[in-house]
Amino acid sequence: MHALIVLSHPEPTSFNAALKDVAADTLERLGHSVDVSDLYAEGFDPAERAAQYPARKHPDRFAALAEQRHASQTGSLPADVRREIERLERADLVVFQFPLWWHAQPAMLKGWFDRVFVNGGLYTSTMRYDRGYFRGKRAVLSVTTGAPAAAFGPNARGGDMHHLLWPLHYSLHYVGFAVLPPFLAHGVQGHGYAYQDADRFAAQLADEKARWRRRLETLDEAEPLAFPGWNDWTEDGGAKQPGFRAAV
Amino acid sequence: MHALIVLSHPEPTSFNAALKDVAADTLERLGHSVDVSDLYAEGFDPAERAAQYPARKHPDRFAALAEQRHASQTGSLPADVRREIERLERADLVVFQFPLWWHAQPAMLKGWFDRVFVNGGLYTSTMRYDRGYFRGKRAVLSVTTGAPAAAFGPNARGGDMHHLLWPLHYSLHYVGFAVLPPFLAHGVQGHGYAYQDADRFAAQLADEKARWRRRLETLDEAEPLAFPGWNDWTEDGGAKQPGFRAAV
Repeated sequence: MHALIVLSHPEPTSFNAALKDVAADTLERLGHSVDVSDLYAEGFDPAERAAQYPARKHPDRFAALAEQRHASQTGSLPADVRREIERLERADLVVFQFPLWWHAQPAMLKGWFDRVFVNGGLYTSTMRYDRGYFRGKRAVLSVTTGAPAAAFGPNARGGDMHHLLWPLHYSLHYVGFAVLPPFLAHGVQGHGYAYQDADRFAAQLADEKARWRRRLETLDEAEPLAFPGWNDWTEDGGAKQPGFRAAV
Repeated sequence: MHALIVLSHPEPTSFNAALKDVAADTLERLGHSVDVSDLYAEGFDPAERAAQYPARKHPDRFAALAEQRHASQTGSLPADVRREIERLERADLVVFQFPLWWHAQPAMLKGWFDRVFVNGGLYTSTMRYDRGYFRGKRAVLSVTTGAPAAAFGPNARGGDMHHLLWPLHYSLHYVGFAVLPPFLAHGVQGHGYAYQDADRFAAQLADEKARWRRRLETLDEAEPLAFPGWNDWTEDGGAKQPGFRAAV
């Protein structure tokens, strides 16, 4: 198996970077090969905009999807997007490692979705969801949060984790991935922040590294999350009645 | 009343830019003053990272929240973040105008949340939610989507709009805003994309402009969305039983 780890954290000595290392080491020890997209270190540009497309189909007005489609068809996608797509093509498993910032992925990783999952190339109006481009590949989120686990239940202080990750999970489903249940490391605080100190950071990191390692070793036991697909929808995209019942 | 419109779209002649103009014109006609943060046009940098903080508290390891807090306390926040905070301080109402990209706001606007809502300045562990910094101010999302309205119900093809906007709405609640129900313009396609043509674009835009104008004229009639607050949670952030029942 070949795996891609997409890391979105600005600090090379962070908890997130350490979890990325554990994933790479564990997967390699299991006999798999591993690529890493370190978005901050590689200087990935998260902003989808006209300047990304020097040879525009419509030079007068910029519409992202039209230019993505045109660049896909003419082989003129931006170099960093081409690199990410090549990495995705090679991967059987994609791991996303990031901290939860403002109830979602950091802008850096959001921009990776905005720019890399190109219209016309990785999806069309009919090549989506259970007919998605990456059918047969698996994806899993590994997320650190600052608050304790109890704060992420229904109506809890941090919000229901199921809702918080839904836009990411559904975006992965959109391009065809089977999405495995996420790995969550709660109560993670950055170095030097508030009540965090080096000893607590190290102890917590050791615990979470071991837990993440065990999770990766037993990845094949995890059932993918359930999402609706084409058979569950009417022509205009509404849910058939009775249709799919999400776990939400 | 003073309003701030935060626009996140890369094309100045876009549907989103036109809705921003309608909001500015309508609010001014109603006797209010208006500021606009045009994130793309102003070159806002969406990536929170070490380079944003030349005078670091911890030069060895970058932790975003620690540096945000330090920069807030020492008056050394980045210039673009200071400008956005000053705009927020002046505003009684904040309108966010953006297209739904990958089931969320564009990375540009996600980065605005990551960088502008600074720890130590706009929130602390006790100054959050119904005790948030911006208590008394209102916020509203104005969102364009590419799919028809039917595709955004429960289990529908585009996802439940309530879930898609939840991370944004809850982030606004986190810093104390009263969050008004969103304005949604569905089935919006960029110029030159797929089946979109200039006539259809113009006709649809005229309809949505009129609808947005009417909504802005009757903003005071809208009840803010309901979210849980401090009285609904136990010490560790879990929901009290019986506690708040969200509309989700």
